[in-house]
Amino acid sequence: MLEAFHVREEDAVRVSSADLRMSVQAMFEHCGMPPEDATLATEVLVSADDRAVDSHGVTNMLRYYMDGFAKGTINPVPDWRVIRERPSTATIDCDRGLGIVIAPKAMEIAIDKAKQTGMGMVTMARGGHVGMCAYHAMLALPHDMIGVCMTAATVTVPPTFGAKPRLGTNPIAVAAPARNETPFVFDAATSTVAINKFRNAKRLRAEIPPGMLATIDGTPVMEPSLVPDFYLPLPLGSTREMGSHKGYGLAAVVEVLCSVLSGAGFVYRDGPYHHMVAAYAIDAFTDVDGFKDTMDEFLRALRDTPPAPGQERVLYPGLYEAEEAVERAEHGIPLHYEAVEYIRTMCAEWGLPCEL
Amino acid sequence: MLEAFHVREEDAVRVSSADLRMSVQAMFEHCGMPPEDATLATEVLVSADDRAVDSHGVTNMLRYYMDGFAKGTINPVPDWRVIRERPSTATIDCDRGLGIVIAPKAMEIAIDKAKQTGMGMVTMARGGHVGMCAYHAMLALPHDMIGVCMTAATVTVPPTFGAKPRLGTNPIAVAAPARNETPFVFDAATSTVAINKFRNAKRLRAEIPPGMLATIDGTPVMEPSLVPDFYLPLPLGSTREMGSHKGYGLAAVVEVLCSVLSGAGFVYRDGPYHHMVAAYAIDAFTDVDGFKDTMDEFLRALRDTPPAPGQERVLYPGLYEAEEAVERAEHGIPLHYEAVEYIRTMCAEWGLPCEL
Repeated sequence: MLEAFHVREEDAVRVSSADLRMSVQAMFEHCGMPPEDATLATEVLVSADDRAVDSHGVTNMLRYYMDGFAKGTINPVPDWRVIRERPSTATIDCDRGLGIVIAPKAMEIAIDKAKQTGMGMVTMARGGHVGMCAYHAMLALPHDMIGVCMTAATVTVPPTFGAKPRLGTNPIAVAAPARNETPFVFDAATSTVAINKFRNAKRLRAEIPPGMLATIDGTPVMEPSLVPDFYLPLPLGSTREMGSHKGYGLAAVVEVLCSVLSGAGFVYRDGPYHHMVAAYAIDAFTDVDGFKDTMDEFLRALRDTPPAPGQERVLYPGLYEAEEAVERAEHGIPLHYEAVEYIRTMCAEWGLPCEL
Repeated sequence: MLEAFHVREEDAVRVSSADLRMSVQAMFEHCGMPPEDATLATEVLVSADDRAVDSHGVTNMLRYYMDGFAKGTINPVPDWRVIRERPSTATIDCDRGLGIVIAPKAMEIAIDKAKQTGMGMVTMARGGHVGMCAYHAMLALPHDMIGVCMTAATVTVPPTFGAKPRLGTNPIAVAAPARNETPFVFDAATSTVAINKFRNAKRLRAEIPPGMLATIDGTPVMEPSLVPDFYLPLPLGSTREMGSHKGYGLAAVVEVLCSVLSGAGFVYRDGPYHHMVAAYAIDAFTDVDGFKDTMDEFLRALRDTPPAPGQERVLYPGLYEAEEAVERAEHGIPLHYEAVEYIRTMCAEWGLPCEL
């Protein structure tokens, strides 16, 4: 079932991360991005492919970004500014610049503030798509900090008991360093699955399990089904009895912290995207060495949990992605052939380098 | 189904909040708490009953606290201290004092820091049970701040795919003010339901819906069932396909922020409880008036969502509890008769006032 959300081997073209980056960078620059920003955008986008977060990588997102530049909904040269600031906080107006470019810069501000006061938090109004939230949270790790990133996305998800969408899939990412273990990297939509994963499943005509989506009137579908043409994703928890009010509530928390707190309104009324990043300096709370040693033991305790009958092993957040990153560095990234064809076509049309 | 987690009318004795508070306060003092701390403990505990959060009110928790004092696991006169501090952060060693007493004081520190720097965050090592997390988060509201509270609880929940518990139900609470609407108050365990709700359902011999718990080997129970003698609660999401790795991951985030970051280790190795509270000053990010107006519109948009077929209306986090608080202020709190009997017995034995 999980494989339904990855590109199937028979649809995949294996490409090297370096070749992919070369063309993607050129495409961003062609759309008017300054080279430094294009480098950053490429790094954030292809990092998702490197880590097997296909839902937020090139296959799903590159064409969306290119279309945004063409339509003018994404500003390639944003005049983003800090519009309010305190010793530990800031709010940025992103001027419709891509979140994948501005969020790493916002995270730098948060990290600087955390160095001064112990923690930093930056809200970001009117940014474009932020990509894989984990990327920004992980920027805190080399500074011995815990990193956080959230984003208020396009409205697609109904509240519990609701028949119409009012919130986005609104993901939350939290990254924390360890000593020898793979870092803890949590990154998850507050819906049952990220909306891009439905797109992947639909493209692959893969059957999805019960409890993942609702019919267009808001009724949870509790049998296995294909992804229909019209549907609503469900909040994490699927039904009220299983806790969907918690997924719904978490999505609303993300909306408050990203949209309302940045002064950008809320997505249902004012449109996406708005983000929040934060950094907590570990040494502001406890000894860094002790923290990392404890994290190692905690994470080992999790992955050493005896598996339930029929299960192979227990993972912890970030472990699978780190293992996949090693595998993909060796064997290449399995992009959907349509995405590869798209890049080849655009690079040919725009006269850009392409080794794919 | 939802009613399964409340005290049934036929088992309930309606008591006034004031009468309940008088006896509870006397019982806390009898156990050695200074009067001021007993007042605070009573306020936090009975607030849960006032707001219909029965899982964290007198019925489930009072005897547990009294037993803790008797066994010496809870220290009625803790020498709690700030052991590390930065302009925006602090760590408290709770010296085994009850979280319901120390968390409000930690929240005061967080609020003071937020006034200075824009935000404040306080981790709390080795505290006792923190009660209803929403109480502490809501302390931020009169200061025009967003409040946060999390707690790392006793290990009961297995990781996704796991056969043994490694994490607590680890709730997260976030409160944000509005202007005319009832404040936004999210407070939810990262498991399908709070463990105390299983206790209520078991006491009531009520059937619970599919996807709420696992058999003792970690296999999710996907049919309706009674709460068995031995079981494991499931992470929010219930199964891997429906997103239980997200509930599991959020529980681990809470463990990192409460336990590891406070220097207290982690609950599976070192025992509970450890907490985290935080306050974000709204005016450090945006105009307070604009924030509250937007919150009103956002919350109205949520509760005005057309309901799905068969549903009466759409709620937002905190709305039901606020409505219940009005109802209970008028008609009294429906305590389980066993809890009332317990209070009467203990007050008689200890020579304390009791009007129940």
